[in-house]
Amino acid sequence: MEDIINGVDTRALRETVEAVKADPGLAHFEFRIFNEWMGGGLNRTTVYDFYGTRQRIAHETPFIMYNDEPPALLSGDAGPNPVENLLHALAGCLTTSIVYHAAARGVKITAVRSRFEGDLDLRGFLGLSDEVRKGYRGIRVFFDIEGDMTLEQKREILAAGPTFSPVFDVVSNGTMVECVLEEDAKQNAA
Amino acid sequence: MEDIINGVDTRALRETVEAVKADPGLAHFEFRIFNEWMGGGLNRTTVYDFYGTRQRIAHETPFIMYNDEPPALLSGDAGPNPVENLLHALAGCLTTSIVYHAAARGVKITAVRSRFEGDLDLRGFLGLSDEVRKGYRGIRVFFDIEGDMTLEQKREILAAGPTFSPVFDVVSNGTMVECVLEEDAKQNAA
Repeated sequence: MEDIINGVDTRALRETVEAVKADPGLAHFEFRIFNEWMGGGLNRTTVYDFYGTRQRIAHETPFIMYNDEPPALLSGDAGPNPVENLLHALAGCLTTSIVYHAAARGVKITAVRSRFEGDLDLRGFLGLSDEVRKGYRGIRVFFDIEGDMTLEQKREILAAGPTFSPVFDVVSNGTMVECVLEEDAKQNAA
Repeated sequence: MEDIINGVDTRALRETVEAVKADPGLAHFEFRIFNEWMGGGLNRTTVYDFYGTRQRIAHETPFIMYNDEPPALLSGDAGPNPVENLLHALAGCLTTSIVYHAAARGVKITAVRSRFEGDLDLRGFLGLSDEVRKGYRGIRVFFDIEGDMTLEQKREILAAGPTFSPVFDVVSNGTMVECVLEEDAKQNAA
């Protein structure tokens, strides 16, 4: 059996699974980012490193990403806005979950394309209605998966996305977010 | 009173609020992205346009963003990974919510910096434990806000983030995500 399937080294994937089974502490990851406001709706994120497999691991070069808002939302449109970036994160995670889990099962994929739509009522953000939520009311996802498989096999491969994707889990089920001032956090830690 | 506060045109913001109060349908937005798998953990998102204020609005140039995974997660580290991009979206949305709502209240901010940490146990993604969730167990957010204000005023300004941010709402409370094959969607629509 060849090792590289869908661009994923399945031997390394099996080794990772065995290592984590033997020592679950290896599976604890902490991801972290830094953000700086640049004026109006524009801000910039930098990602230097993460923690995982019991060590700090630096990205080879730091990643820099932007958020901005279009003129209709009162800024200069110098980057995708946060709710577009949220769909981007969800798209990446579902795709990678589909591709990696297909590789683990030996299923070869030749193409994955997807489109994401989210409905948002701006009255929530503007504080104009208590009955309208701030975030997306709903998100619709459509996947095209190509490979030598039947429609039923495609449905099975697709299902690995919602089943295993970390971002899908967070977006679907929610995660507790604690949000404090740095100076209050320091005070509490003292 | 000057109109531009924190880089936000507060006159345009007030006009937006009045327009939406008079015609709530203007507040319905649909954001949409397209994603294409490029091999392994690498994939690319393109954002062309969105729908809002009853029209399709194109970004001046399409935005292109990447997801990849580091070697520890079996790919080439050509971009931030999806769970890092999720933190990026959250950071941008909290920051913009703080800045815009401060502007609406006439509160001038000179700097906003933040850091985000998320804990993730990889056993969820790998399907090794039913007791471990796939997504972040928790997210911690620390904000530095600078301006001519007291600590108590900073806390009030910070609170606009979790109160009004669309991405914070989605990440904290969850949103229904429907995920189907494009060909099943076409079948059902037919």
